[in-house]
Parts: sequence; C-alpha cells; structure tokens
Amino acid sequence: MLNRTYDTQNCSVARALEVVGERWSLLLVRDLMLGFHRFDELQERLGIARNILASRLERLTDEGVVERHLYQEHPPRHEYRLTEKGLDLWPVIVGLLSWGDRYLVDEPPVVLEHRGCGGQINDRRICEACGAEVTVHDAVARRGPGARAAGLVPAARAD
Amino acid sequence: MLNRTYDTQNCSVARALEVVGERWSLLLVRDLMLGFHRFDELQERLGIARNILASRLERLTDEGVVERHLYQEHPPRHEYRLTEKGLDLWPVIVGLLSWGDRYLVDEPPVVLEHRGCGGQINDRRICEACGAEVTVHDAVARRGPGARAAGLVPAARAD
Repeated sequence: MLNRTYDTQNCSVARALEVVGERWSLLLVRDLMLGFHRFDELQERLGIARNILASRLERLTDEGVVERHLYQEHPPRHEYRLTEKGLDLWPVIVGLLSWGDRYLVDEPPVVLEHRGCGGQINDRRICEACGAEVTVHDAVARRGPGARAAGLVPAARAD
Repeated sequence: MLNRTYDTQNCSVARALEVVGERWSLLLVRDLMLGFHRFDELQERLGIARNILASRLERLTDEGVVERHLYQEHPPRHEYRLTEKGLDLWPVIVGLLSWGDRYLVDEPPVVLEHRGCGGQINDRRICEACGAEVTVHDAVARRGPGARAAGLVPAARAD
C-alpha cells in the first residue's frame, strides 16, 4: 500500500488510500464483491503475478478488509471473503463505476440492480424504482448494455 | 497511472482506476476540491517531488480531469482547476472519506456541510438537515472534531 508519508496528513481520505490506494487493491475488492473468492480465479481474472496477489491479499487481511476461510481440509484450501469493513468499501466502488460509466465507456458493461425489486441503483446507492437506500447486501451486479461476450460478470453471478 | 493491462477488463471501475488509480492522483483531486490550485501549494501539501507532481498534473490534464489556467502574465504563472469531469470524482472522494472516518480515525478531521443550509452531508451525499441531494458545488469542507491544529482545511477555506 502507499507509504506512511500520508500519516502526516490528518485526513480520512489519505488514511483510506493507505489501505486501498495501491494498484490492484480496489480491483481485488471489486472481484470479491462480485463473488470470486478463490486465489486461482482471482489471479486469472486480474492477470497479475501470484506473489503480487498473495501480498495484496495478505495486506488486506492484516487490515481487516479480507478474511481467509478454510473451505477444504485435505489438502487445506482457503478462500477469501470481504469482512464488513471490506464490504463497506462498496460506495467507493460504486463511485468509480459511475464515473467510469459516465466518462470512459460508451455503455455500462455492468449495471447494479436492487435485489428482489429489480430497480436500477443510482450513484447515491438509491433504487430508482422504489427509492430504497440500497446496501451492498441488496445489490446485484448484472451484465449491462456495454458487456462484451466474455464480460466481467458471469450470467447471474453475484453474491 | 496504471498500465493498460486493465484494458482487457471490460469494466468501468478498472477504466476509472486507469485514470485516477495511481498513487497521489486522488489526493491531488482532493486538494484541488479543497481550493488549492497552485503548483507550489499543492507540492507543499502533498510533500512529493516536483517532477512527480508535474507528471501527475500533466496526466490528469491530458485526461480532461484538470485544466491549466494562466493567472499571471509576467512572468507566466498557471494554476490548476478541476474540470466538470474532475469535479464528478467527488462521490469517490466522499466514499473514501466516509470509510476512513468510520474505520481509520477516532473522530472526523473534516466534515462536509451543505452550503447555506449548514446541514451535514452523509455518505450518500444527501443533506441530513434538509434532505437535498447535494452536489460538489454546494458542499463545504469544515474542520471536524478530529482536526489537528495544523489541519487539512484552513479555517473557512473551501471553494
């Protein structure tokens, strides 16, 4: 993550970027939110070196953003899940997503939908259909009009 | 900024991080939002090497996030201002600020206030007092209860 020069800055933005400002960290958080939890699938999706991914996961685990869970005992296999602290980064991800949708792509590759209701979630995380203040637990990522054949979100994959 | 490996990712989050995911970029955007526009004051606040700051500003200018304005002709002096595209990164900054406030500091060094109304702005950028959906143009950064003597926001400084 970023070095502690930021420590002299009495600012929550700077402190947050110490934890998640290093390259790949927020993309990793995004993929964990999309429901990818295993080292190999994260490594394949991000296309980064295994040692870099391992070091990012370790740092995020140390910071309480990610937790390691044993999902198989023989041989031992772990998966990675966001803690509540990690899930609370959702507004940052939604902010980046909305800005990217607005300025950097023709059409959204991914849209966020209010679970159950089906309404679209706007950049304030409010459901456009029912007006609910949506949390990450009630959001589903769907393929949007700009999704490519091999898109980010597998059909109906989101948890 | 981050390299174009991300290009293979059909994702607005990844595209956004190509533009603002490099270290210092979002802190620079934060400082421009707080009303610091001159190279020397930005350099002093961020405490980074002048060549690094110059390269970040140039990249953000190329991306249409920042604009250079001549404020003095003899000798020529420029200042840097966020474009609308740059100002639209406010939700990302608010997201990082809220998360940092919640998990990384004891009390908020900075609070966001609805201009004129005086209500506090929450993490959905809604005024807690009047319920308005606040934009960056109507937000004022104030010193919060966690502000230190030499804090981030000079008294009454925010534009």
